[in-house]
Amino acid sequence: MQRIRIGMVGGGQGSFIGGVHRIAARLDDLFELKAGVLSSDAGRNRASAAEIGIAPERAYDTVAAMLAGERGRSDAIEAVVVCTPNHLHHTAAKACLEAGLHVICDKPVTSTLEDALDLKAAVARSGRVFVLTHNYTGYPMVRQMREMVAAGAIGALRLVQSEYAQDWLTEAQETKGAKGAEWRTDPARSGAGGSIGDIGTHAYNLAAFVTGREPARLLADLTSFVPGRRLDDNAAILLRYADGAKGMIWASQVAVGNENHNTLRVYGSKGGLEWEQENPNVLGFTPYGEPRRILTRAGPAATPGNLWGSRIPSGHPEGFLEAFANIYRAAAAAIRGEADAPAYPTIADGLRGLAFIDACVRSNREGNVWVDLDAG
Amino acid sequence: MQRIRIGMVGGGQGSFIGGVHRIAARLDDLFELKAGVLSSDAGRNRASAAEIGIAPERAYDTVAAMLAGERGRSDAIEAVVVCTPNHLHHTAAKACLEAGLHVICDKPVTSTLEDALDLKAAVARSGRVFVLTHNYTGYPMVRQMREMVAAGAIGALRLVQSEYAQDWLTEAQETKGAKGAEWRTDPARSGAGGSIGDIGTHAYNLAAFVTGREPARLLADLTSFVPGRRLDDNAAILLRYADGAKGMIWASQVAVGNENHNTLRVYGSKGGLEWEQENPNVLGFTPYGEPRRILTRAGPAATPGNLWGSRIPSGHPEGFLEAFANIYRAAAAAIRGEADAPAYPTIADGLRGLAFIDACVRSNREGNVWVDLDAG
Amino acid sequence: MQRIRIGMVGGGQGSFIGGVHRIAARLDDLFELKAGVLSSDAGRNRASAAEIGIAPERAYDTVAAMLAGERGRSDAIEAVVVCTPNHLHHTAAKACLEAGLHVICDKPVTSTLEDALDLKAAVARSGRVFVLTHNYTGYPMVRQMREMVAAGAIGALRLVQSEYAQDWLTEAQETKGAKGAEWRTDPARSGAGGSIGDIGTHAYNLAAFVTGREPARLLADLTSFVPGRRLDDNAAILLRYADGAKGMIWASQVAVGNENHNTLRVYGSKGGLEWEQENPNVLGFTPYGEPRRILTRAGPAATPGNLWGSRIPSGHPEGFLEAFANIYRAAAAAIRGEADAPAYPTIADGLRGLAFIDACVRSNREGNVWVDLDAG
Amino acid sequence: MQRIRIGMVGGGQGSFIGGVHRIAARLDDLFELKAGVLSSDAGRNRASAAEIGIAPERAYDTVAAMLAGERGRSDAIEAVVVCTPNHLHHTAAKACLEAGLHVICDKPVTSTLEDALDLKAAVARSGRVFVLTHNYTGYPMVRQMREMVAAGAIGALRLVQSEYAQDWLTEAQETKGAKGAEWRTDPARSGAGGSIGDIGTHAYNLAAFVTGREPARLLADLTSFVPGRRLDDNAAILLRYADGAKGMIWASQVAVGNENHNTLRVYGSKGGLEWEQENPNVLGFTPYGEPRRILTRAGPAATPGNLWGSRIPSGHPEGFLEAFANIYRAAAAAIRGEADAPAYPTIADGLRGLAFIDACVRSNREGNVWVDLDAG
Repeated sequence: MQRIRIGMVGGGQGSFIGGVHRIAARLDDLFELKAGVLSSDAGRNRASAAEIGIAPERAYDTVAAMLAGERGRSDAIEAVVVCTPNHLHHTAAKACLEAGLHVICDKPVTSTLEDALDLKAAVARSGRVFVLTHNYTGYPMVRQMREMVAAGAIGALRLVQSEYAQDWLTEAQETKGAKGAEWRTDPARSGAGGSIGDIGTHAYNLAAFVTGREPARLLADLTSFVPGRRLDDNAAILLRYADGAKGMIWASQVAVGNENHNTLRVYGSKGGLEWEQENPNVLGFTPYGEPRRILTRAGPAATPGNLWGSRIPSGHPEGFLEAFANIYRAAAAAIRGEADAPAYPTIADGLRGLAFIDACVRSNREGNVWVDLDAG
Repeated sequence: MQRIRIGMVGGGQGSFIGGVHRIAARLDDLFELKAGVLSSDAGRNRASAAEIGIAPERAYDTVAAMLAGERGRSDAIEAVVVCTPNHLHHTAAKACLEAGLHVICDKPVTSTLEDALDLKAAVARSGRVFVLTHNYTGYPMVRQMREMVAAGAIGALRLVQSEYAQDWLTEAQETKGAKGAEWRTDPARSGAGGSIGDIGTHAYNLAAFVTGREPARLLADLTSFVPGRRLDDNAAILLRYADGAKGMIWASQVAVGNENHNTLRVYGSKGGLEWEQENPNVLGFTPYGEPRRILTRAGPAATPGNLWGSRIPSGHPEGFLEAFANIYRAAAAAIRGEADAPAYPTIADGLRGLAFIDACVRSNREGNVWVDLDAG
Repeated sequence: MQRIRIGMVGGGQGSFIGGVHRIAARLDDLFELKAGVLSSDAGRNRASAAEIGIAPERAYDTVAAMLAGERGRSDAIEAVVVCTPNHLHHTAAKACLEAGLHVICDKPVTSTLEDALDLKAAVARSGRVFVLTHNYTGYPMVRQMREMVAAGAIGALRLVQSEYAQDWLTEAQETKGAKGAEWRTDPARSGAGGSIGDIGTHAYNLAAFVTGREPARLLADLTSFVPGRRLDDNAAILLRYADGAKGMIWASQVAVGNENHNTLRVYGSKGGLEWEQENPNVLGFTPYGEPRRILTRAGPAATPGNLWGSRIPSGHPEGFLEAFANIYRAAAAAIRGEADAPAYPTIADGLRGLAFIDACVRSNREGNVWVDLDAG
Repeated sequence: MQRIRIGMVGGGQGSFIGGVHRIAARLDDLFELKAGVLSSDAGRNRASAAEIGIAPERAYDTVAAMLAGERGRSDAIEAVVVCTPNHLHHTAAKACLEAGLHVICDKPVTSTLEDALDLKAAVARSGRVFVLTHNYTGYPMVRQMREMVAAGAIGALRLVQSEYAQDWLTEAQETKGAKGAEWRTDPARSGAGGSIGDIGTHAYNLAAFVTGREPARLLADLTSFVPGRRLDDNAAILLRYADGAKGMIWASQVAVGNENHNTLRVYGSKGGLEWEQENPNVLGFTPYGEPRRILTRAGPAATPGNLWGSRIPSGHPEGFLEAFANIYRAAAAAIRGEADAPAYPTIADGLRGLAFIDACVRSNREGNVWVDLDAG
């Protein structure tokens, strides 16, 4: 099968997430990277392109230049990966969509809700595929969790406990030259959310993906523990769903000892499911009144989504990159218009993520009150 | 050394907690059980006494009868253990204090804040020792955690994440003849709190014991997921401390797969500590920027409280009963007036627990708003 | 019910295991300690007796004096606990049996196989109960494991993997004044086995208890890693059973990082069971081709032996002392002649333990060859 | 940098390991697959080539045809990946080496020791790079373990405990149409070792890689538990090193509940290190007398090899494929002649693996006696 040709916006030297996208695109041999605007700094752009094997003439200075340069080539890119800082997603993605390209975009989708709404309209007009890389939804056991909830394995959903804790912002890294810390704590580049944007949106999206529903309202308490920090580095959030289910989200970047502790537990009238990202190949499942089962990736009792997301036999751990690559696999299927393309996060999820950030900020500003979550 | 002679109020046949108190009292050979009012049912009272070796003439029908009967005996009881349903604690404990007995009382201390305030005054008048069996504070690693926080091991406290999840009330056990479920879900016998009283107070108290401080305000969202249930079976609570620290408590009795998942994680500017009750002999400690250490009961780097609370070498698990017995050890030291008696939960903690329940109920009733925690 | 009156031989001040026996005897209120020969040092004997509440006149200087002194008392001891260093078990236990007392004896039963055979005959002549405190057989999940194997849950037994690793003899503690290290590494007091006697016999006995069978042959490689040590501090042992099953035992007291890592895994044609002592309230069970189940103490799917061995609900950890006390519960039932007394380790197990040590030493001496295990 | 062009021998449709090699080769964009003899079945060969994007004219019927066809092409392959059943490794690898190609070969290197010795000579004559994919040596924490042992972190090595347990051959899969089970249990295709060849060599090699030394002698007990099976499905092995260290290896393919339980624990005079493949991003390290540290991939205290082997930040799990790809990274560095190419398993390791299998079989045949390990 032909590989899908892609260009990349952002992700040059020094970017962690750029490398992740490239590995994810390459892992299953479904994409080939042919062009890019890897950095707004021309020198770094060229150096980055050379390093990763993009031909010099296809290392463009701007998105506009890339769209112009690719137009008419027989091997022109068909899709673009956007992994710049958040505030640049909107214009890049929109321009690419309007040029007829499919878009794979990092999260959060934009830095403001307005931009996200605008982008949603652009997606709709374009008829193109828009994939948001909420990569944690790519884990096989997360797919199994979603399928089990949908199939009634835990009965009627009651509780959603979602946590995402890290510790890398325990001190003021943003004042010590750490680029990733700089833009993530800068409202101009990150938007209104700090930890809620960077990781809270993952916790929120993961819960939505697994439970198949969005909360109707939330109440948030945001904190900046590190002196001088301009965005939240910790968030405590209560959720309410229309059907009576409730939830809690805890997101923190100052919880010392947590490297990337992203865990989701859901409980219903008949069972419970518990998963944590740092040991992602297992899923705890307890039917009420029975012993807990340890379900495994590609193991006994695997659901279709678990098997779909697995490349190798059980007991051989797959990880973060494989889960990320699963989003790319789903993207490839969607771009090719396959009938049974697996679920992936879309512009709608992006909008909901922004609505989530917006709601958290509003709730917090107004004294930690309930606010509606309305994703337009 | 002479054993302290005790009487027991409540805890007859069919009571889980009565047996626990007796084992805890016996484990270190510091107490001997000599009298009791084990049940309000006269037949069960006598049968219970016979079964546990209380002389028939000291199996009294009422607390008043016990106080009268013991008065003047050379081997009269010196202290009393109160482990009735919550609403009976107040009168029993008060009468015993007024008769000059020390009191070891199960939690929550009473079923109303008013009763607790009254009892507090009674304790003060009596000059007697009043010990509240918040037994989780007896775990050696909890003692170590408290000492490490006090010694600055995690720097300035920022976050308190306290969870206590069970699943035994997932269905309406109270309608199926389960005595423990009946009174725990009955406001007349349990007070205004369901899960917040039964286990939330433990989660609250444990956090206070470890951090050495009480929150100033809280915001609570209480739920009764099981149709027909009259008290909460799930609680999500946000905490704020006067010094800027924040916290979350999750208490649930409908989280399927959680047998007795009581976990406390605290994070500060320089480190983090994580403990869970179901595997209580270890404590995770991460100094910021260093690898996590697994501290063990009586192991390397044990603090005085860890060693105090340990009977046997590391690697030989001690559990719930030993932790409970540690409260009894502390009680014995206090009753004997030892100079260096270890910390134990007191009437003040009982009052704070009631204030906690009261604040949760108020916050919830008023729409999940911040309310002050004022323990009078 | 009347408590069984016991005397104690050994276990005075400074003895870890003496305190353990006393707690275990007391935990369920089935025994009372009335007399003792707690130390061969007269002063320490008296001080120890005073400390633990034995009347001065019943703190005897020798076993003979105790037997003479107790004879004819209306409250004479009915049983004796022997917890001296190994080489003193034989004469003490034999004398007590001949005086008509039941015996609860620490392991290994004696320091030589000859002594054990002699003691076996004495038990047979006496008609008294002889209980060997292979305490790990008291764990509820070990009881469940035994019952599941017997019931065919894992099909035909194939493999036994038993490990007991510690690290407290990593350095030459015996030269640094550690009493417990001194006698355990002294052939005159411990017998021919070092780690194989102290902990290897536990690993061996636990496997036998759970599988319900003894190996026919073994091959052992013993090592003393610490320079100057006179007994083994590490043992690698291969097992063969008459029915074709095989096994491995690893016992070590120099495996740094292992506090008391005692784990047993058994595999059959249809399933596997895995248990570890440091987290003893859970048992992994995998039926072939199905997800692993996590069975818990007193939890769903608990077998009768699990429930028998449990005092409190699941999720409330019980530990080493409770397991030890279960051996005392079984002993009490046997002493009282109860019809359905639960299984406990006997003189036969003691003999098999000595035969195990003897076989290990022979196999090792002869160049790590297969030797028959013959317990006479 | 130019990608290294490779051809693949074996690994066509239905091969698990072929897919693994391709992902590993692709992950870091250092190789491109250009040609292949993917199957001895011509139809399957063509179909496999088409599926994975090899041009039809470069899907050759035989190795000889591939070598002939590639000769003289400007884009000829520079290296070959051999991942056929074991007995075909020898001739394919030798032919490729003689044609001047570098070879990346699956393990065990050949099916007989004779073949391995012959291949060793061929490697020496060729001057080409020969990489054996003992992939577990690619895990970052394994690299850290090796570096820590070399640096003296555990003092003088005493004990090596290596386990590799699976359960997929618990029943006679080889009679039920499972291709992988068929050739792995067929002496003609697998060589003299069953479980010892398939996974025992991994356990052996991993221990050698981490400790930096080979045992001098071993004693093995091999079993075929499944009726009718012609090769061992379980192995218990004792090791002795020249310097006095000792070890145990347990390899099993009938241990129900073990998916791919590959664990290595090493203990020395000053510390211990413990790692397990199913949770590969952590490494337990205990300096004697101190609390255990949990070292993490790319985390605090990471050694150069840990960092070298890591692509993404700590807390984001990397797994089996990434470790496998690390062998390919090392291979690329070696093929390019980089001065500081990281360690990788070589023909010498292959030979030692065969010597290990050979020694196991001899020891077992002769009644489980000590035999020398001599890798010629």
